[in-house]
Amino acid sequence: LLLCPYIGAFQYPSKLDVSGSLVVEQLLKLATFSDVPNPAVTRIVFTPNDMKARAYVKDLMQLAGLTLREDAVGNIFGLLAGDGSAEGLVQTGSHTDAIPLAGAYDGTLGVIGGIAALRALSAAGFRPRRGIEVIMFTSEEPTRFSLSCLGSRAMAGVLSAETLARRLDENGTDFLTAATAAGYGRGSTQAMLDAARVKPGSVSSFVELHIEQGPELEANGTSLGIVTAIAAPAALRVRFSGDGGHAGAQLMPRRNDAGLAAAELALAVEAAALGTGAPDTVATAGRVDLAPNTVNSVPREAAVEIDLRDVDESRRDAVLAQILAAAEEIAARRRVRLQTEVANRDAPATCAAEVVAAATAAAEQLGASHARLVSRAYHDALFMAQIAPTGMIFIPCRGGWSHRPDEFASPAHVELGVKALALTLARLAGAAGNPGKAEL
Amino acid sequence: LLLCPYIGAFQYPSKLDVSGSLVVEQLLKLATFSDVPNPAVTRIVFTPNDMKARAYVKDLMQLAGLTLREDAVGNIFGLLAGDGSAEGLVQTGSHTDAIPLAGAYDGTLGVIGGIAALRALSAAGFRPRRGIEVIMFTSEEPTRFSLSCLGSRAMAGVLSAETLARRLDENGTDFLTAATAAGYGRGSTQAMLDAARVKPGSVSSFVELHIEQGPELEANGTSLGIVTAIAAPAALRVRFSGDGGHAGAQLMPRRNDAGLAAAELALAVEAAALGTGAPDTVATAGRVDLAPNTVNSVPREAAVEIDLRDVDESRRDAVLAQILAAAEEIAARRRVRLQTEVANRDAPATCAAEVVAAATAAAEQLGASHARLVSRAYHDALFMAQIAPTGMIFIPCRGGWSHRPDEFASPAHVELGVKALALTLARLAGAAGNPGKAEL
Ligand SMILES: [Mn+2]
Ligand SMILES: [Mn+2]
Ligand SMILES: [Mn+2]
Ligand SMILES: [Mn+2]
Repeated sequence: LLLCPYIGAFQYPSKLDVSGSLVVEQLLKLATFSDVPNPAVTRIVFTPNDMKARAYVKDLMQLAGLTLREDAVGNIFGLLAGDGSAEGLVQTGSHTDAIPLAGAYDGTLGVIGGIAALRALSAAGFRPRRGIEVIMFTSEEPTRFSLSCLGSRAMAGVLSAETLARRLDENGTDFLTAATAAGYGRGSTQAMLDAARVKPGSVSSFVELHIEQGPELEANGTSLGIVTAIAAPAALRVRFSGDGGHAGAQLMPRRNDAGLAAAELALAVEAAALGTGAPDTVATAGRVDLAPNTVNSVPREAAVEIDLRDVDESRRDAVLAQILAAAEEIAARRRVRLQTEVANRDAPATCAAEVVAAATAAAEQLGASHARLVSRAYHDALFMAQIAPTGMIFIPCRGGWSHRPDEFASPAHVELGVKALALTLARLAGAAGNPGKAEL
Repeated sequence: LLLCPYIGAFQYPSKLDVSGSLVVEQLLKLATFSDVPNPAVTRIVFTPNDMKARAYVKDLMQLAGLTLREDAVGNIFGLLAGDGSAEGLVQTGSHTDAIPLAGAYDGTLGVIGGIAALRALSAAGFRPRRGIEVIMFTSEEPTRFSLSCLGSRAMAGVLSAETLARRLDENGTDFLTAATAAGYGRGSTQAMLDAARVKPGSVSSFVELHIEQGPELEANGTSLGIVTAIAAPAALRVRFSGDGGHAGAQLMPRRNDAGLAAAELALAVEAAALGTGAPDTVATAGRVDLAPNTVNSVPREAAVEIDLRDVDESRRDAVLAQILAAAEEIAARRRVRLQTEVANRDAPATCAAEVVAAATAAAEQLGASHARLVSRAYHDALFMAQIAPTGMIFIPCRGGWSHRPDEFASPAHVELGVKALALTLARLAGAAGNPGKAEL
């Protein structure tokens, strides 16, 4: 605990004023900014509902007394200023965008809860040495531009202008155009990315609060998860093209049905994941788009998007190779043309020992049961880990469900998670002046 | 040839003035009323482009000197009046709606070509005994209301108000509401259907000109197809529902992926069609819609629409039963919920001997090579056959392709088809006054 001078140096009795039910109320208010009726939530980056969510987040930040700024890609920051006696900012945050038909907790907890944490620290009279900043990251979800974690990739400087400019939404709009229309952007994609990139050394540490999106905490009756690693995700896009034709007139032997190639590939994806024998390997054909997609036409085009994750990067890459080989075999046998693109293949992240230690100390201070676990889901923390010591705190969610309208975390767990986040941030930021004054 | 008094009674030397290239020009003009850029054509019933197509068709009918009327479901009629010396109308026609990403010839040939045929008969001084009417049928394609041949089903009186009222488009709009907004409709779905229904005996015969939508004519170098039967189509809708979940966090053993159930079903559909060993059995999983359909979610819902056709109705029904059994087996094994609905299961049509004879005589008069064949595609003729002696004339289309942007029939075949239609209609309608005056 003495590896870092600012950890364990003070006592943090929990005097934080956090209301779980108030945070949940704010989460449910945020959920109303949705393209579909609640409880389902759909909120796509830079659409009117995303803009409403941004306005709401900025309002909450201001009500919490935080200093606002926004960067060129639309990341929104709310700062609780430090006394300047230590280098770098401690950052937290998550996302508020939601995939189609999702729920009210994924990502949003880390933003709304992050603001609540900073507000509670401030209300408790805590003055940090390092500034603490809560971030609403732009487009963590890949829905619109087929690329996850846009905001954190840009901050980490791991997103090339060429890659970003090529990812068009379904109307052919690029990110720069959409960002510019939303009041962000710069003259070019490159200039925008340059402006959003974080200066080396300017972030001292990063910690993200999130629902688990898995069943382990609930199943074991554990209240807090301290994340030790984030699984390595890859995404693959496959397009089969056949000749289509009329569903009545095109006889079976003449067909090269792209939809059936996609069907075989989806099953091959499942088989490849099961084939490793490792419970940590998951692979999903989550998106399939046929064209013309009408009952009376043989499918001419089938686009399949595949998500593949593992805690073991080499095992994941072996599964990826197996899926690519299956796509080729299917295309050859079914006489359809094949295009494949590895949309992303990111490295796993190991969480920083100092952040894990701070979160563990926070959990213990709160008397909360806690366990170390691996995050199987993608998070902005994965990219923040490339520029700063990073960690995550999980709370249980009902049934382990996420990305569904019935996604749910209890107000008690929400409150505990926000308190744990606040105490972790305080430990990482350090207390200004006489430590004894900052009893939390 | 003497079974019907008006067939073979006159000579019809071909003096008809039909320009294949002019008809093609009109088809390509019609193609510009499309939701997507040409050569692809998408035109959905009662959308702005469908309304433009309707206006254009009515213009052409008026330019051809035909008397216009429209019925309650939006079928459009252009009449070349008869002298009243024989009972019933001879009707022809087809549709102008186009499935997503279709071409310029399917259906449209029978409307634009039908108008050209009546114009040529009129210009040649032909006066029919029976009135001859060309029809643009409403919504032959099932795109918007998941029900094909709406206009001809309504005319034939085989569509119940209950069925029609239940078929909503993707915005939840019913046909009556959409038809009313387009200037058609009646106070209720029942009143609308009652108004559109044809009086028994009022149609003396029906013949539809269409591209083959199959490869046989082209492959055999045959110029005209005389249709003897229309294959019996059925459509099945299947919905699988699972629990979805996050693609990273939802481990493989806990999943019940609705998309994988759909993938297995699509392959089972193919296997069932191939399993009959009969080349005439075709089955297609043409439409698959996943929800939420995002790369990072396990598919929670999968809706599959299946088209199934055969010239042998009992064999088709056996395949349908096999597909339903496969859906149940898959749902049980994959622990997904299952809903199935047989959207339609229509009887095949046998073409009337008198129409086949008239079309054959027309082809011979034109010196055109011709062959009898089965229509494997769905047509309005299938329902007109329920109220009148019915036949169809096919022309070759390139590669047998249809329902694709590169759908194509040569101007020479278009011209021949229109002439053959005109001569067939003339034979079925009979010539008024001195037959010798009506040399065609
Ligand atoms: Mn998510
Ligand atoms: Mn998230
Ligand atoms: Mn069609
Ligand atoms: Mn057609």
